[in-house]
Amino acid sequence: MASGDSSDSSKKLQEQQQNESSTAHEEDFSQGNYGIMPLIQSKEKIDRQLIPVRDINEKSAKQTIWVRGRLHTSRGKGKQCFLVIRHQSATIQAVVCVSENVSKPMVKFATTITKESVIDVEGEVTLAPTPIESCTQKDVELQVKKMFVVSPAEPRLPLLIEDAMRPDDPTTDGAQAPHANQDTRLDNRVIDLRTPANQAIYRVEAGVCKLFRDTLDAKGFVEIHTPKIISAASEGGANVFQVTYFKSNAYLAQSPQFYKQMAIAADFGKVYTIGAVFRAEDSNTHRHLTEFVGLDLEMAFSYHYHEVVNTIGDLFTQIFKGLAERFVTEIAIINKQFPCEPFEFIEPALRIEYKEGLALLAEAGVQMGSEEDLSTENERILGRIVKAKYHTDFYILDKYPLAVRPFYTMPDPDNPKYSNSYDMFMRGEEILSGAQRIHDSQLLLERVKHHKINIDQIKSYIDAFRYGCPPHGGGGIGLERVLMLYLGLGNVRKTSMFPRDPKRITP
Amino acid sequence: MASGDSSDSSKKLQEQQQNESSTAHEEDFSQGNYGIMPLIQSKEKIDRQLIPVRDINEKSAKQTIWVRGRLHTSRGKGKQCFLVIRHQSATIQAVVCVSENVSKPMVKFATTITKESVIDVEGEVTLAPTPIESCTQKDVELQVKKMFVVSPAEPRLPLLIEDAMRPDDPTTDGAQAPHANQDTRLDNRVIDLRTPANQAIYRVEAGVCKLFRDTLDAKGFVEIHTPKIISAASEGGANVFQVTYFKSNAYLAQSPQFYKQMAIAADFGKVYTIGAVFRAEDSNTHRHLTEFVGLDLEMAFSYHYHEVVNTIGDLFTQIFKGLAERFVTEIAIINKQFPCEPFEFIEPALRIEYKEGLALLAEAGVQMGSEEDLSTENERILGRIVKAKYHTDFYILDKYPLAVRPFYTMPDPDNPKYSNSYDMFMRGEEILSGAQRIHDSQLLLERVKHHKINIDQIKSYIDAFRYGCPPHGGGGIGLERVLMLYLGLGNVRKTSMFPRDPKRITP
Repeated sequence: MASGDSSDSSKKLQEQQQNESSTAHEEDFSQGNYGIMPLIQSKEKIDRQLIPVRDINEKSAKQTIWVRGRLHTSRGKGKQCFLVIRHQSATIQAVVCVSENVSKPMVKFATTITKESVIDVEGEVTLAPTPIESCTQKDVELQVKKMFVVSPAEPRLPLLIEDAMRPDDPTTDGAQAPHANQDTRLDNRVIDLRTPANQAIYRVEAGVCKLFRDTLDAKGFVEIHTPKIISAASEGGANVFQVTYFKSNAYLAQSPQFYKQMAIAADFGKVYTIGAVFRAEDSNTHRHLTEFVGLDLEMAFSYHYHEVVNTIGDLFTQIFKGLAERFVTEIAIINKQFPCEPFEFIEPALRIEYKEGLALLAEAGVQMGSEEDLSTENERILGRIVKAKYHTDFYILDKYPLAVRPFYTMPDPDNPKYSNSYDMFMRGEEILSGAQRIHDSQLLLERVKHHKINIDQIKSYIDAFRYGCPPHGGGGIGLERVLMLYLGLGNVRKTSMFPRDPKRITP
Repeated sequence: MASGDSSDSSKKLQEQQQNESSTAHEEDFSQGNYGIMPLIQSKEKIDRQLIPVRDINEKSAKQTIWVRGRLHTSRGKGKQCFLVIRHQSATIQAVVCVSENVSKPMVKFATTITKESVIDVEGEVTLAPTPIESCTQKDVELQVKKMFVVSPAEPRLPLLIEDAMRPDDPTTDGAQAPHANQDTRLDNRVIDLRTPANQAIYRVEAGVCKLFRDTLDAKGFVEIHTPKIISAASEGGANVFQVTYFKSNAYLAQSPQFYKQMAIAADFGKVYTIGAVFRAEDSNTHRHLTEFVGLDLEMAFSYHYHEVVNTIGDLFTQIFKGLAERFVTEIAIINKQFPCEPFEFIEPALRIEYKEGLALLAEAGVQMGSEEDLSTENERILGRIVKAKYHTDFYILDKYPLAVRPFYTMPDPDNPKYSNSYDMFMRGEEILSGAQRIHDSQLLLERVKHHKINIDQIKSYIDAFRYGCPPHGGGGIGLERVLMLYLGLGNVRKTSMFPRDPKRITP
């Protein structure tokens, strides 16, 4: 069984170690200072501080410290072995060199450790004679005194970190060397995620969520949680996953739409929710997932839905500012592997009407019907026009044709062909769809009939508006798309830790 | 169709208003100052600040302000009408009184507004001659000048707020009066959620999530998102919902367990995730839901899993402290409807071994086998014993028998019948289950075989440990249970906004 190799490699190392020590027993004065550590099963509490690699710098010089990390690379050279130890995005060079403290067998042991093994190393920090360009900690290195393997990696890695670290772009330097394709990466996601770029991407993703929440908390929003299992295919019926629910059936929610609106009808005023949303859409594109993380918000407003539009516009401004301020290091690491123009935005966010958008497209020779929806391609073209004209990668397109929006969208009071709805775009791709919603049950029923939706299936939603509801609006954001577009990564699978699409539900 | 009543009631009000004005046209000098407002469709931007009811106090006296809220109650009395306006948890009395500014028809109109309608009222704030005990804003009232219905409620409410607000407990004052049962509440959840207690409960719930995240962010954790759609019934196969996935089948994740561990194998160090988890368990109890919100964390540790236990213990301490500090008002509101002993805890958290727990139970006359799991009833009894002895409603029970824990649990190094695992309890009920996990693929395979689990189904999980993984541990918390137990609410349906159980998937 392939999965048994782990202990095999561990055993091989142990045997080798024993052979070394038996043939060269008298001279191995390093015995006890290296080897395979027994499985850490919490047998004892060791009073030892492990220093993160990223924190080791010139100030650490002359200190003897313990470090835990992975063996990134190793290179034996006579009586020395040069190791690079990696911990998350940081790397440091470590030298195992025959000396009065380090025996030959110990150096040899170092050369046998498999790449990606987790190791504990004790060493003295010394200043590097010349900067070590291959490591993030360029000015220091570790003179190894003790080293133990905490968790060995099998010798044959299905994906090499060096390959996973190379830029995709064939025009970029180094692209002649092998680089891993998307499927190989995703099949071996646990290894792929160890690259510096991936370490950074998911920290920035956490940052987007934190900025979303912190900005909305400060504006008086309440975080809520909405059910994913629902009784009926809510928004029209297509593209919904069916679940076997005891002796009956249920469905997976395509969005928290109905529930966040019900929270408004229930007087929560302003709400947001972050959670999984599901789309049973057989789309195999760079921007579709069957399961993604929705950042949703909904708020009661006083008299005009632009109160909502402005709130969301400001939310994005805060997210863009926050990312640029707090994640300088991470963004630089990501750009190294995936080069990209910095994200440009203006404050306050640009808002233009759908009609204006069509006029801009027409000027550029793209003709569309006034009630036609924008195709993905036309969204891109419009994004480029807007960027050239207004110098922003983010903008709001307001007042969509009513015909292309969901049944619960509030019609424009002045022109029934339009609606109080909007999309928001980053680098020419849609990342938020939203609207003022119909808060009157009678008008809602009319629109349900117009759309020929089965009223019985959404009765509890419609009922929510029978007992008074303030005017309200909101929007839903796809987390993975926001991050993909902000970082210019080109594929939403790069911003979903374990992506789901029509062809992939593992790992 | 029942759902059409809304406009009926709206029409009735409008007709009545017209009748009033036609029969008494000459004397209705208030015309234009009251009535049904046209549907707020964002036709115009009105420059008017709506003051939240909770912010109106003695300092507001003599100011003329606009307020939006629901008509909580109204009582016509000759030439006056007393209204209580409710906004979220706050209420204020408003008086519509015939005067030089307010006509008789206007007072009459006020008496016809249906309860729960959303209204806009302009009024002068005056000091109340005697405290208004029935309102939260006791010292002031509003002398109404203008009033408009923004969104009318149908006249017959399926659930009265007064009934929904009464304590459950029959020994409590007022329990003779009708109070709504759980199903009526949940069937009409949008109205039920408007009670002051529910307004407070879900704000405290948001607080638990915020405290969880803020505490872990400060400890260097990274927020991640894990897939809910998985390819195989992961943890043993029972109690899992099946999903139709295009031409094949998939399942809903019972926990983020495998994925948070894979994030550790992928070098994220310390991770947490908040998201929906699913259990297809036909349990109809006060503490089981088929879908709930999991607060999960996982962390690499240096040498002993008690590093994890201490981190989680401190996390709970921070949550309990934070709730007590930040939610004094909300907790008082909740206790008014659902009285409860304050939650007691000690710092650092109490940790006792499973064996000690059994000894304490034995002292109390409860005999159990040493490798037997605690029943719900015995957990309760032990909770009472611990509370009496140590004065804490929270404690950690460490070193469970290996036989009763999942296959990936690390065995105790000194006694193979035990394990490096723990549960945590609030008021004698389990709210967290956790352990050191097996980070060695060989030992993991042995345990998988021992548990007779199909290896093929969890191959990607096992593979995650073949290429080096640091020792790690963690735990999973049920959000709804934590809040139910902290507040002593007795039923997990009270802390899930739209609960899901074997018999309920609506609204």
